[in-house]
Amino acid sequence: MGSQKFIEKPIPVDEAVKRTIEATKPVKETLIVPILESVGMVLAEDVKAPYDFPPRPRSAYDGYAIRSDDTPGRLRIVGEATIGTLNRSLRLEPGTAIYVSTGAYLPEGADAVVPEEIGAKNGYIEVERKVNKWENVDPPGFYVRKGSTLLPKGYVLTMLDAVALLDVAVVRVKVYRKVRAAIIVTGNELFEPTGMDDEDKIIVNGMVAETTGKLVEWFIKRYTPWVEITTRILVPDHPDTVAWYIEKTAHLNDIILMTGGTGPSTVDTFYQVADRLNGKLLFRGLYVRGGRPTSALALDGGKLLIALSGHPISALHAAIRYLYPVLKYVGNVRRASEPPVTTYVKLMEGYRSKRPEPIKVKLCVSNGVYYATPLPKERQLSSVIASNTEADAIILTEGREHQKGEMLPAMVYREPQPC
Amino acid sequence: MGSQKFIEKPIPVDEAVKRTIEATKPVKETLIVPILESVGMVLAEDVKAPYDFPPRPRSAYDGYAIRSDDTPGRLRIVGEATIGTLNRSLRLEPGTAIYVSTGAYLPEGADAVVPEEIGAKNGYIEVERKVNKWENVDPPGFYVRKGSTLLPKGYVLTMLDAVALLDVAVVRVKVYRKVRAAIIVTGNELFEPTGMDDEDKIIVNGMVAETTGKLVEWFIKRYTPWVEITTRILVPDHPDTVAWYIEKTAHLNDIILMTGGTGPSTVDTFYQVADRLNGKLLFRGLYVRGGRPTSALALDGGKLLIALSGHPISALHAAIRYLYPVLKYVGNVRRASEPPVTTYVKLMEGYRSKRPEPIKVKLCVSNGVYYATPLPKERQLSSVIASNTEADAIILTEGREHQKGEMLPAMVYREPQPC
Repeated sequence: MGSQKFIEKPIPVDEAVKRTIEATKPVKETLIVPILESVGMVLAEDVKAPYDFPPRPRSAYDGYAIRSDDTPGRLRIVGEATIGTLNRSLRLEPGTAIYVSTGAYLPEGADAVVPEEIGAKNGYIEVERKVNKWENVDPPGFYVRKGSTLLPKGYVLTMLDAVALLDVAVVRVKVYRKVRAAIIVTGNELFEPTGMDDEDKIIVNGMVAETTGKLVEWFIKRYTPWVEITTRILVPDHPDTVAWYIEKTAHLNDIILMTGGTGPSTVDTFYQVADRLNGKLLFRGLYVRGGRPTSALALDGGKLLIALSGHPISALHAAIRYLYPVLKYVGNVRRASEPPVTTYVKLMEGYRSKRPEPIKVKLCVSNGVYYATPLPKERQLSSVIASNTEADAIILTEGREHQKGEMLPAMVYREPQPC
Repeated sequence: MGSQKFIEKPIPVDEAVKRTIEATKPVKETLIVPILESVGMVLAEDVKAPYDFPPRPRSAYDGYAIRSDDTPGRLRIVGEATIGTLNRSLRLEPGTAIYVSTGAYLPEGADAVVPEEIGAKNGYIEVERKVNKWENVDPPGFYVRKGSTLLPKGYVLTMLDAVALLDVAVVRVKVYRKVRAAIIVTGNELFEPTGMDDEDKIIVNGMVAETTGKLVEWFIKRYTPWVEITTRILVPDHPDTVAWYIEKTAHLNDIILMTGGTGPSTVDTFYQVADRLNGKLLFRGLYVRGGRPTSALALDGGKLLIALSGHPISALHAAIRYLYPVLKYVGNVRRASEPPVTTYVKLMEGYRSKRPEPIKVKLCVSNGVYYATPLPKERQLSSVIASNTEADAIILTEGREHQKGEMLPAMVYREPQPC
C-alpha cells in the first residue's frame, strides 16, 4: 500500500503531526459523568454555574448569626444552625442570636455574623459595636454567579477542578469518551518479566524484558489521561500475524500503537505489515535522533497505526514530540492538565545535536533555576538503556548547536538536588 | 493529654516538621519485589549490577557478524543469529558471515559486525575495507560493569529506572514496605457525591460534597507513591466516635490523617479527640495562611495523628509544605521521583503575604519562563473553592512582600498557555 522499506527522507515532527491529524478525526461521542469520574477527561461543552453560589447567605465564621439592626446590644442565644442542616422553622427574631458554623446558611432574618470569640455568657452574647449588614457573611453568588463559565470546552478536568465544581453544585459534566488505543508490542526476543526466573532468559539466551510497550503505556496513563489503553499485547515478528492483530484490534480502537520492527532490515515487520494492510502511509521516518524510524499509516475510517521504535527512550522521545499532540487532537484537548514537558532547564555546557534529540541529564536546582548537565555522549546511545538510572531528566534539543546557558524543555523524572 | 483548644502560637513549618520526625520513626520492614512492581517504592539497599552487561559481545546493528581478520574479503553467509536466540552450535569459521540483528549476541568466533546495508548477493557479502576488531559491537560490560551501583538506597524507583534495570538483568529489588496511612474525614455537613441527586443536598440543605479527603488522597497517590492509603472513611463530628476510629485504625497504619474539625470552635473535634487519646501534642497550628489550624499528635509507638484543615486548598497547602517532608522521612526517601512542586514561576506583579500562603495564579510561558498572575485577593479566600477553575497553578509564597519578577515554586495543574 505504498509503504516503503527504507527510511530515506525523514520528515520534521511538525509535518508528521500535521499529516497525521489531517488523516484522522477527533472523537465525537460524548457522555455525562459524575464529577469525580471526570478527572482526566475532556469537556465536551463549557461548564456553566447552574446556580448562584452560595444560593443563600452563608456564614464565613463559626459564630452567631444576628440582625445588624440589633447592634450594639445584648442578644439571647435561641438555637444553632450548623453547616449541612437547614431548619426552616428557625427564624431570627429581634434581640436574639443563633449559633452558626462556617459555611452554614444564615437563618431567616439574620444578616450578619459575629465570630464565636465574642464569648457567650448565661445564654447571651454582648455585641458592643455596630455590626454592618453582611459582615462575616458570604452573600449569594459570592463564589460564582449563575450562568458564568467555570471551565471551557476542550479543557481536561483536573482534581482541583473537580473539587471546585462539586463545591458549587456542578455534580455532572458532559465529556468526550476517552480515546481508545491498543499497544501491539513486536519482537521475538521479548518476554514479559515476572521477577522470578528472568535472569537466565536475559543472560544466557540474550532475550530482552519487554519494557518499551510498558513505558509507552506509562506515558499515556501519566500524561494523557483522556486516552484509555484497551490492550497491550506481545506478538511475534511475523508480518501476517502482526497485520492480523492490527485488523482484529482496529474496530475497538482509534489508534493502534506498534512498538518495534520499525527499521528497514529483513527482520523488521512494520513495512511488511503496512503492505498487508489497507491503509495510506502518512510518513516513514521522523527527522529526529532517537525515534527516527517512527512511522504512521492511516487505516480505514481515520484510524491510525503508529509505529514507534523498539528502543524505550527512542519510543518515549517520539511519544513526547509526536504522539502527544496527536493524542490531544484526537481527544479534542485544547488545554491538558499536565504536559510531559513542564520544566525548563539551563544547559551547564554546550551540546551539539544534528537532529532533535532526547538528552539524558543530571539536574540540580538553585534559586529557582534548574541546571542540566548531560551524561557523556556514549551514555546517550539508544542501546545504553541502563544510563536512565544515572540521569534525572530528559531534555529535548533542537537540531542545532546549543550554547551553555540556553533554556531547554525537560521531562523531569527524579527530584532535583540542590546545586 | 496536653492538647489545647485555641491556636495561639502557630509554629513555623520547619519546626513542625522537625518535631514530627523526632516523634516518629522511618519504616523498617523491607521486601523483595519484581522490578515492575517496585515503581514508586523506596530502595532499601543500593542496587548493584549483578553482571557485566552485555555479558557477551552484542551486535549494535542489524548486519553480518564476521571475523575482522577476514577483511577485506568475500564472505559466505552461513546462518543467522537474531536477538533473543542463542545457537551454541553456530560458530563462525574463517571466510564466513552470520546474519545478526541489533542486540543479538555475536556467534562464537565473530569479533565485528558490518551493517546490513552492505547488501548480500548469492549468499555472499563483499567487504571491501579492513574492518576493525569490535566494530559495530557493544563489548561485554559496555552498558554496566558488574558490581557498579546503579541506584542508591533511599531513591524512589521511577518507571525509567525500571526500564533501565530490567535491561541489565536486575529483575528484583529490595524495597521498604509502603508507609501506611488512613484518612479520616470529619464533618457532619459532608456527603459522598454520586453524581445523581446531589444538587438538592447542596442547594437546599447546604450540605457539602466531601472533597478534602479525596484531594489529600490524590496528593498522596500522585506525589508520594511510597505511601499506601489503607482507608478513607467519613465519620461524624463526634469526639468519642472520631477517637474510637483513630484507635481502631492506628495499629494498621503509620499515620492517621484527619481532615476537618481542626479549629477552636465548639463544633471542632480535633482538640476534643486529642484529649481522649493517649498521645503527645506535637504542635497546634502552623505559621501559614491556609492550613493554619494544622496540628499533630504523637500516638503510642511513634504513630502520628495529623489533623488537616477541612478546606481543600488549605489542606493541600499543609500537605505540600508539611506532610510531604514528613512522608519522605517516614518512607526513608532520600530522593523522590516527582515532588509536588517542580516548577518555578516568575511573579507578574508584587504580592504581599504576611504568612506563607498558597496563591492561585494564571500561568503563561514564554522562552522557557513561566509567568504567574495571581487571581484577585477575594478569589484567594479559602471559602472560594470555585476559583480553582480560574487558575492554572498554586504558588507558595514566603511570609513577606514579594516583588514583581521574583521566582516562586509552583504546583502546576493545568497546561500553561503561550504568553
